[in-house]
This record gives sequence, C-alpha cells and structure tokens, in this order.
Amino acid sequence: MSAQIEFYFDFISPYGYLGSLGIEEIAARCDARVDWRPMLLGVSVMRVMGLKPLGETPLKGPYAAHDFQRCFRLLGVPYVPADGTMAPLPAGRAFSWLKDRDDELAVRFAQRVYRAQWSEGRDLSSASALAELGRELDIDPDALVKALADPAVKARHRERVDESLARSVFGSPSFLVNGELFWGHDRLAQVERWVETGGW
Amino acid sequence: MSAQIEFYFDFISPYGYLGSLGIEEIAARCDARVDWRPMLLGVSVMRVMGLKPLGETPLKGPYAAHDFQRCFRLLGVPYVPADGTMAPLPAGRAFSWLKDRDDELAVRFAQRVYRAQWSEGRDLSSASALAELGRELDIDPDALVKALADPAVKARHRERVDESLARSVFGSPSFLVNGELFWGHDRLAQVERWVETGGW
Repeated sequence: MSAQIEFYFDFISPYGYLGSLGIEEIAARCDARVDWRPMLLGVSVMRVMGLKPLGETPLKGPYAAHDFQRCFRLLGVPYVPADGTMAPLPAGRAFSWLKDRDDELAVRFAQRVYRAQWSEGRDLSSASALAELGRELDIDPDALVKALADPAVKARHRERVDESLARSVFGSPSFLVNGELFWGHDRLAQVERWVETGGW
Repeated sequence: MSAQIEFYFDFISPYGYLGSLGIEEIAARCDARVDWRPMLLGVSVMRVMGLKPLGETPLKGPYAAHDFQRCFRLLGVPYVPADGTMAPLPAGRAFSWLKDRDDELAVRFAQRVYRAQWSEGRDLSSASALAELGRELDIDPDALVKALADPAVKARHRERVDESLARSVFGSPSFLVNGELFWGHDRLAQVERWVETGGW
C-alpha cells in the first residue's frame, strides 16, 4: 500500500502554494497519495494561538513579503499576487463542497485557485470569481455559488477546520505522515525522507 | 576576498545551535567567513513584534518541543537540554565582552555554550556556570564574572542587540549575506546557494 500524506493548506498562504507544488512532486517520486485538507490561519494563528496575522507582524511581516518573492523565484514559479488581502473562506468552502463530491476534482480546483491567486494576480475572495474559475474545470457555476451560501456547506467546512486543529495543525503548509507533523514548505526534504524511511 | 556571512543567534534557541553548526560547514565549503552576532528573541519577538515566547504559544510550542528533538536526531546532534528555561542574557553579554577582545575566542566560547546548554544539559543562566565553562577555554573566570556585572559591558551588548534589530533580524538563527536576510536553520541550503551564486 502506498504511503499517505495529509497536506494541510490555507489558500491565503503563498507558502501553502509552494508546499502544494512540492508535495505533489514528492508523492510522485515516492508513490505516495496526498490527501488535501483545508485549515484556516485566521482560526489557528489568531484565535487559538493569539498571534497577529503575518502581514501585520513587525519585522516578520516585511521579511515574509520579501521572502515570498525570493522563494517563488528560486522555484521558478511566477509570483503575481492579487492586490489586497485574500478572503480565503469562500475558496476553502468551495473546496470542502467539492471534496465531498469528487476528491480528485477538488484537488484540481485547489491547484487552480492557488495558481490564479498567487501566480496570475486574480482575486478569488468572492463567490463569483470562484464560479468563473470553476468553469475552466467544468464545475457548474450556479451550483458552486449556491453551495457557498448553504449553511450545511459552511458547517462541513468548519468541521474540517476543527479537524485540522484536533491534529494540532497551526501553519500552512503542514504535512502529516504516519502521525508525524511537519510545518513549512522548507521542511519538504524532511517530509520526503520520513515518507521514504518511515522516520529517523 | 572571501564572502562574509553575518550569523545572528540567541543562546536560548536550539535552532540557533543547529544553525551555528550548519553555517560553519557552509563557510568551510564556500571559503566564507562567519561573523557571529548576538540577538535576543526576548527583545525582537516579545517587545518589538508583540508575540508570546515560542514555548508559551499554543500548538506551536508543543510542535517546536517535538521538532527540536526530531531535527537534532536527523543531524546526529545530541539533544540534552538543561532543565527549565535558559536565561540567555549573561551568556550573550559574556560573548559580547569576548568579541571586543578576541573574536576567534568569542566564537569558540559561543560554540561551547551552545553545546553545553543543548547537548550536555548544563544550565548556563548564571555567571558562575559561565565562568566554570570559560575555564575550559582558558578564560579568566574572575574577569568574566566581573565583566558580567560591568554596566559598560551590558551597554555594549544592548548596542549589539539594537544593531540586530536595525538589520531587521527577528529570529534565531538568522543569516545576512550581502544585505540578504534569511531566517531559520531550515534555510541553510538557500544561504549556501546565495553565498555561492550571489543571488537568484
């Protein structure tokens, strides 16, 4: 049986995007399966940990803004973020809704959202922008818009975010391999080693 | 002329210890010089950034406690921390005092402090413990104890900590190469690449 990697991500996180690219490469090399699972930095960092958002943290905020560009450049991934701060909740809910219907489609949707948000400068904070993007993957735009207003979809997404907290996930990206949690796209080499060797 | 790497560290930081080991290996490979410079997480994280200490941060604190052990194990470095929380200021001041007298000795002292604190379980929070350790390097214990009580030594160390903030250093370890700041021992590969190629 191939190894399974739980990949926790927030669409608001550029490092999450880089992590998503890296973990799929590792999965391909190691014949592992990636289970994409949403988390929310707004809940873990601000509500549970009681910290400021990264962008509003003195010293670390400006460092991260510079580091995003440097990391993207190193990996050859275009860094063209949308103006302003993304509201990641609608995209997360859309992902949760899709995941319960077609996990493979949900992953392709998430990959498309990440690329559009961070490499194509498209603001995906709204239901209509997400519906427009979903069209490219033959996702019914009306059904997506309707799902985003559905209290059951919101509750299901909240459940998933609670699940991420129950697994002690606090940052994006995070990776869970056989109960072992790794945080940060700069830990991908450790994740790969853990997948390959079963630990050290 | 060989490249210069400014290495910022706090003795309280196990990641700083791992960073110190890694950066000296890189310097040897790249024929670069490492300039060891003190910083204080208590000032940058708590006072300037307004965050909690790592150990007291929900989710991230327990994660880090586990991650320290995992990272040390991976690198084959014994992880035997002293009981309780280290008070890093005396060791930092002792380093600053030595640095103004004999930079090479200051580095050997810092390396010895790091190893004793994180691999040998020796609490180096006090002047007497530092004096005892300094003996191994032929540092006059009475002179060291006297220096630690000297307002001029305290002021000089504060100056260095202020310098680290002026360079936007907030975490331990941090590395500054040609004006480019890198934070975290997990960024050593990027630091080495920057030293070798002059950037990307």
